[in-house]
Amino acid sequence: MENFEFYSPTRIIFGRGTEEKAGELAREYGKKVLLHYGGGSIKKYGLYDRVVQSLREAGVDFMELGGVKPNPRLGLVQEGIRICRENNIDFILAVGGGSVIDSAKAISLGVPYQGDVWDFFMGKALPEKNLPVGVVLTIPAAGSEASNSVVITKEEGLLKRSCNNDINRPVFAIMNPEISFTLPPYQTASGIVDMMAHIMERYFTHQTDVGLTDGLCESLLKAIIKNALIVMEEPENYNARAELMWAGTLAHNGIVGTGRIGDWASHAIEHELSALYDVAHGAGLAVVFPAWMLYVYKHNINRFAQFAVNVFNVDYDYASPEKTALEGIRQLKKFFQRIGMPTSLKELNIPTDSLEEMARKCKRPNQGKLGYFLPLTEEDILAIYRLCL
Amino acid sequence: MENFEFYSPTRIIFGRGTEEKAGELAREYGKKVLLHYGGGSIKKYGLYDRVVQSLREAGVDFMELGGVKPNPRLGLVQEGIRICRENNIDFILAVGGGSVIDSAKAISLGVPYQGDVWDFFMGKALPEKNLPVGVVLTIPAAGSEASNSVVITKEEGLLKRSCNNDINRPVFAIMNPEISFTLPPYQTASGIVDMMAHIMERYFTHQTDVGLTDGLCESLLKAIIKNALIVMEEPENYNARAELMWAGTLAHNGIVGTGRIGDWASHAIEHELSALYDVAHGAGLAVVFPAWMLYVYKHNINRFAQFAVNVFNVDYDYASPEKTALEGIRQLKKFFQRIGMPTSLKELNIPTDSLEEMARKCKRPNQGKLGYFLPLTEEDILAIYRLCL
Repeated sequence: MENFEFYSPTRIIFGRGTEEKAGELAREYGKKVLLHYGGGSIKKYGLYDRVVQSLREAGVDFMELGGVKPNPRLGLVQEGIRICRENNIDFILAVGGGSVIDSAKAISLGVPYQGDVWDFFMGKALPEKNLPVGVVLTIPAAGSEASNSVVITKEEGLLKRSCNNDINRPVFAIMNPEISFTLPPYQTASGIVDMMAHIMERYFTHQTDVGLTDGLCESLLKAIIKNALIVMEEPENYNARAELMWAGTLAHNGIVGTGRIGDWASHAIEHELSALYDVAHGAGLAVVFPAWMLYVYKHNINRFAQFAVNVFNVDYDYASPEKTALEGIRQLKKFFQRIGMPTSLKELNIPTDSLEEMARKCKRPNQGKLGYFLPLTEEDILAIYRLCL
Repeated sequence: MENFEFYSPTRIIFGRGTEEKAGELAREYGKKVLLHYGGGSIKKYGLYDRVVQSLREAGVDFMELGGVKPNPRLGLVQEGIRICRENNIDFILAVGGGSVIDSAKAISLGVPYQGDVWDFFMGKALPEKNLPVGVVLTIPAAGSEASNSVVITKEEGLLKRSCNNDINRPVFAIMNPEISFTLPPYQTASGIVDMMAHIMERYFTHQTDVGLTDGLCESLLKAIIKNALIVMEEPENYNARAELMWAGTLAHNGIVGTGRIGDWASHAIEHELSALYDVAHGAGLAVVFPAWMLYVYKHNINRFAQFAVNVFNVDYDYASPEKTALEGIRQLKKFFQRIGMPTSLKELNIPTDSLEEMARKCKRPNQGKLGYFLPLTEEDILAIYRLCL
């Protein structure tokens, strides 16, 4: 087992009606609040009204900045930083999914920083302070509500980059599974793939003697698969929505990665798709992850066999562990298809002529190889894109 | 699923050599430190010297209070409160197991409180502030290093009582599995029972649709059982010690209880044993828990059958789910015996003439029935003590 640090201080307030506590919680952390959100869905279904009412009832002074797009952009982050500075805002309340939360986190990093907030995403500076961020979660997917991660995209060159630091963890996350009832199936499914990918990025390791964490990963993956199939049939099944929402947080708050080093190549390979073609991150991962698995599984066949057996109840083939491993990958792909996800670039309408460009951008010049399970060269990345066709 | 709040902000620093960070971490939280510990074992094996050196190297000003006994006493807590007040101590570093940590937590509650610290344990007052507490953990067992719980015993009347509040969670916990290499087998085993009990108190519920948390409970229990059998044979097996140490924290930081209400009757029933006869808490639980299971299992046979199948790999008996349930209880008892734990009061040398007194003290006059899975009357508690004979 590797040495590790684990620090996940986000206060989780989970269940029916919890969004009504947004005002009183925000008041604990700030005097003036930026209410940050995306498009119209929170207004359409009444969540916006309930949060605003809660803020007013708690006597919280707030301003608004909406308009966050999927794959959130640096431009809006910079506008948010300006608004916060000009209005002495000291707390950001993100009402939305991963994109809104990440936009809020990026704003919170930029407000007290003298330089360009993009520095943190290019590794030019390490964040030392930020504004506290609170969350009212609408989409179980990114796990950003309790994670140390923030990902934004710079319009110029369509660079999608992340900054991982414990300072980024929100101070609270309000999670009412009922809010996810109205998510369209495609978005629900994208979220499911995203949370599974967060677990699988940590699961595939050569580290031995980490059975405890393996068990947590496997039981979370099984719970996600089971409840995913329920919500695709019954979008208003509270318990299934609740299990998925909580699984999304646990998938990415760090607990399933303790004692081992994650891979994260699939995430980076997908980020290029999202940045160039604005596909949903989860949909992109449904294409990339099985391709990555096919490309690397031979480097530890029994780890992939363990995945097949313990997550998809595949019978272990003693005569051919490789068959077991391949059957696990096949089952995963089949599951993605069953919940309506694409498993090829073709289904995402992505042209084949940009694979080289994406592979080049993905393999950043100053960062050595990509990933940890099997460190990838630019050629490896291109080969994986080709497996996605 | 029940609504829940989950807040576990303790910073975990896990692995080999981590105790060397004690000084630099303590300095982050306090100007003057109380170094709190138990008997001689931390001095015998050099941990005391390493921690003191780390504090000195970090330039931390500290005082000492040793002498914490198992089932920590109110008297020493009051002495600690006096020392902290007279010396303007603003941080407590607990170096030890659950007793030392709980003693430190109780001191930290008492320092800023005007009244008697025992008020918090008798439900007469709710804690509002305390001193921050940091931990260097020596015994994986109580989970106190990241829990909201503190249990102490008042000498007069031998009352063992708890105070559960998020304010009690330590700010950091340093966990080096190597420190547990020298634990005697009986203490190792007591710790193993204690952490399993923390999971099982949450596992046995009538709540349906909490498969995600069930899965986390089951995979943790399996990891504990597997690694327990390893460390009984190989006390210096780092990975097995590491898995047990981390499991002890996860068993009691709240994560395996989300969305459901725990029972906790077995803990209260055991506390009377520890208070009157000073037995190790885990050893007492090894006697009480299977007896509680036998007394209550008929109220939800399939929950106990699920435990048997998913934790002990018992084949589900479709013709008699009850047999499956009973086999699970038998396997648990057998496992406790295998790691050298008692499973009867006789083995603990506890006389039979105090059962009525313990049942009366356990069922507190103003608290209604005890437990949640099956709320217990005084007669029920006495019957469970009799099953322990």
